[in-house]
Amino acid sequence: MKIRKLAIIGVGLIGGSLARALRKAGVVEEIIGCGRGRENLEKAVELGVIDRYTHDIGEAVQGADIVFLAVPLGAMKAAFTAMKPHLLETALITDGGSCKGSVVADAREVFGEVPANLVPGHPIAGTERNGVEASFAELYENRRVILTPHAGNTPEAVARVRNMWEACGAEVSEMSVVHHDEVLAATSHLPHMLAFGLVDTLARMKENDEIFRYAAGGFRDFTRIASSNPVMWRDICVANAPALSRMLSAFAEEMNELAQIIAAGDGDHLLEVFSRAKEARDRYVDGLQTEQSSE
Amino acid sequence: MKIRKLAIIGVGLIGGSLARALRKAGVVEEIIGCGRGRENLEKAVELGVIDRYTHDIGEAVQGADIVFLAVPLGAMKAAFTAMKPHLLETALITDGGSCKGSVVADAREVFGEVPANLVPGHPIAGTERNGVEASFAELYENRRVILTPHAGNTPEAVARVRNMWEACGAEVSEMSVVHHDEVLAATSHLPHMLAFGLVDTLARMKENDEIFRYAAGGFRDFTRIASSNPVMWRDICVANAPALSRMLSAFAEEMNELAQIIAAGDGDHLLEVFSRAKEARDRYVDGLQTEQSSE
Repeated sequence: MKIRKLAIIGVGLIGGSLARALRKAGVVEEIIGCGRGRENLEKAVELGVIDRYTHDIGEAVQGADIVFLAVPLGAMKAAFTAMKPHLLETALITDGGSCKGSVVADAREVFGEVPANLVPGHPIAGTERNGVEASFAELYENRRVILTPHAGNTPEAVARVRNMWEACGAEVSEMSVVHHDEVLAATSHLPHMLAFGLVDTLARMKENDEIFRYAAGGFRDFTRIASSNPVMWRDICVANAPALSRMLSAFAEEMNELAQIIAAGDGDHLLEVFSRAKEARDRYVDGLQTEQSSE
Repeated sequence: MKIRKLAIIGVGLIGGSLARALRKAGVVEEIIGCGRGRENLEKAVELGVIDRYTHDIGEAVQGADIVFLAVPLGAMKAAFTAMKPHLLETALITDGGSCKGSVVADAREVFGEVPANLVPGHPIAGTERNGVEASFAELYENRRVILTPHAGNTPEAVARVRNMWEACGAEVSEMSVVHHDEVLAATSHLPHMLAFGLVDTLARMKENDEIFRYAAGGFRDFTRIASSNPVMWRDICVANAPALSRMLSAFAEEMNELAQIIAAGDGDHLLEVFSRAKEARDRYVDGLQTEQSSE
């Protein structure tokens, strides 16, 4: 694995951490950052995350052998449009978007078909912090990265993107676009909606200052993800609307059922639900620990 | 503040931590533990959390000047019944139940009226771990404890329970039973239902092993409270059924609205909800930090 020139479009937590990780692994020669905020980009140079920067996507991708897109999903199409005339024919394009259906649709619209050199990807990693200062080289270590290759990809293109992520310490797997978007709706997008929704519900209650004052530590953990970037999440919701709205309706239905069980005082039924959930949660955490300690 | 003989009914995280904290503060002479599990109680003696134990509540409260009830809400009534003939006339009774309406109702049923010496209370603290080995003396430091005194309490009785918690480093406030139960439904019971409900929803999906495999770190934080004791939570739900089922229905309604907004692709509306939630969440965490650092 050797990257001569890497263009990172969007130098925040995700893009910045990829740059740092590849640099740490010693597999990249030159990194060009591209974004809108001058201050963040200057900070990125100062921190050694990127070598230089430009605000122009076309300029950024010139001569790049890998282009990594880490922009909000709503900005993907404009980014594809801007880079299109300037890409090397051999340039590999990949991204970090949390929904893959919209990225593929945007690419198809801009390029006429999904480019053979575009291998959509998604690192399952992140914190609720933003900006290059939040980035760190170890973000992807032992974390999963999902690639959603398409029929037009060559095995070499897919292998090269896989190698890039493996150089960061990630564990790479592949699945279809549709399956990815369903899995992510369940495991990430839905929980974020619950956290945003819960905090918003409480914030709209009378005496909400008092409400928050009495919230305990568990509440803090539970709502941490509600501090995530609202623009990014708006874009994810719009991009993954079909899978996510279906999931949310199903969850609302489950909550209504739970409300009825509680109102009816059906303790046996409650115990069954809570026990099944605790068992699944404990099994999941055990699995996670076994996995991490074996790596 | 001086306690000659403290009876702790239920020597787990909550009861055990109170014992440890009061002992550390040097304000208690003798602590009797009471519970069903011999192993846990022997461990409690071994760890120095309690001085001795009994499985008999009547025996435990004999001669006690303070009785602390840390049993599941569903066991409160039986505990009141068992202690009734053996209580000193001057014995102060308090508890750690997460719902106060049911505790007061249980006491009224057993004693004919809410006893003048019963000052219901609720420490807003805990972890998802159980048993005396999970207890620690610092659990209540800088945490809030809510007392819900009633008209029959003397100011002295309320002050004495307040002093007990303050000796543990807690910050004590007072509110009505109804208000407490609404605040807790919003800040603790509802979040637990969401966590249990989310994990259960995912556990019931096809390919749930894969689902959990791709859940990221945020999911782990978000669902930590789903590992809480199912029996305790069944009892809380049954005890606080009116406030909690109302809150759950309202939340389900909010989730249905959100599903519609997402299905309609209304990005402006989504941004408004997410921004308001992020702002409230950040303000709450800032408030928490300011508070803790000033103490």
